[in-house]
Amino acid sequence: MILYDMEKAPNPRRVRWFLAEKGITIETRQIDLPGGENLTPEYLAINPRGLIPTLVLDDGTVIDESVSICRYFEEMQPEPNLMGRDAKEKAVIDCWQRRVELDGLYSVAQAFRNSTPVFANRAVPGVTEPTEQLQPLAERGVLLTRRFFDLLDARLGETEYVAGDRFTIADITAFVTLNFARWIKLSPGEQHTNIPRWFEAVSARPASKA
Amino acid sequence: MILYDMEKAPNPRRVRWFLAEKGITIETRQIDLPGGENLTPEYLAINPRGLIPTLVLDDGTVIDESVSICRYFEEMQPEPNLMGRDAKEKAVIDCWQRRVELDGLYSVAQAFRNSTPVFANRAVPGVTEPTEQLQPLAERGVLLTRRFFDLLDARLGETEYVAGDRFTIADITAFVTLNFARWIKLSPGEQHTNIPRWFEAVSARPASKA
Repeated sequence: MILYDMEKAPNPRRVRWFLAEKGITIETRQIDLPGGENLTPEYLAINPRGLIPTLVLDDGTVIDESVSICRYFEEMQPEPNLMGRDAKEKAVIDCWQRRVELDGLYSVAQAFRNSTPVFANRAVPGVTEPTEQLQPLAERGVLLTRRFFDLLDARLGETEYVAGDRFTIADITAFVTLNFARWIKLSPGEQHTNIPRWFEAVSARPASKA
Repeated sequence: MILYDMEKAPNPRRVRWFLAEKGITIETRQIDLPGGENLTPEYLAINPRGLIPTLVLDDGTVIDESVSICRYFEEMQPEPNLMGRDAKEKAVIDCWQRRVELDGLYSVAQAFRNSTPVFANRAVPGVTEPTEQLQPLAERGVLLTRRFFDLLDARLGETEYVAGDRFTIADITAFVTLNFARWIKLSPGEQHTNIPRWFEAVSARPASKA
């Protein structure tokens, strides 16, 4: 089993953090994403979508969506639990994870991919043909990221963690999103009075350093 | 338990179809999305995100991501199975479902929301403030939808169904995506020789009419 990884990127970090919370160690290989190693024939032979992270099981099965990789490990080792123990928990945690991902992470990614020079002509992840960076997409991404900070702060005024009263995969996604947002100089503001409490608690988890 | 629904929209259909495959019947209420009923105070009190579908459990828990709603019912009633039976299956099916959703459904949605007159100034789902439709986003959505047809057809040349050798939630997402794409006059082309076989097989399922 091998995990194709990249130390700085947000999606691989979500998986490494998840594995660290579970106390699971697996073989990893670093792929140079900014340098375009993910779009070389060698890597595309492993994963035709050119995305990172990618998990390759011992039988050759390829899984390349961060959340799906996490689900594999959650099913293999349900504790410490990160994705829910019963039907309602699993649905609620999945729902919050998706909300954070769709409202937050993808908004940051849209702003980042459409403005950062290193991804000029590579605005769409995993597409080998040139895709132009578009200013209106970057602006919309910024708008939606700011909206996400409001949504997150409102939620953390109701609950201790994103999905409820305990730490779950939804907190990993949210924390990684906030770090990623700093790459485009966006952060919660003074009006976001709940996020700092949560951010500090999550930062204190050893696995957050994975 | 109540499902807030809208007959024509793609995301509610994914849930209705899933429930029909499971043989599960629950109370539903129709919400007029084009007419903006989802953004009224009454509906926002039920779901502050203003999105459809929304499942409200008997204890008042609100779940509003289609896939999360499906997960709830999968966990409550694992058979007929739609999201996997073991760790590998669950991860692989989840991965293909996400790929179809992210590469396909969201691309169509981006093109649709940024070009269809009924959503003028409502380009971003669930946002009450006006959001302008942006031509570059619509164009990118069309580009990525066409790319998705290529990806889907290639996959269906390798496997009987999207996630492997049996029908799963990933096929529901893909089929609904193709129907949704017709709303913006996009369809697979003659070069896509595998999609028709699959489309016919999936169309024949009674639950596809849900």
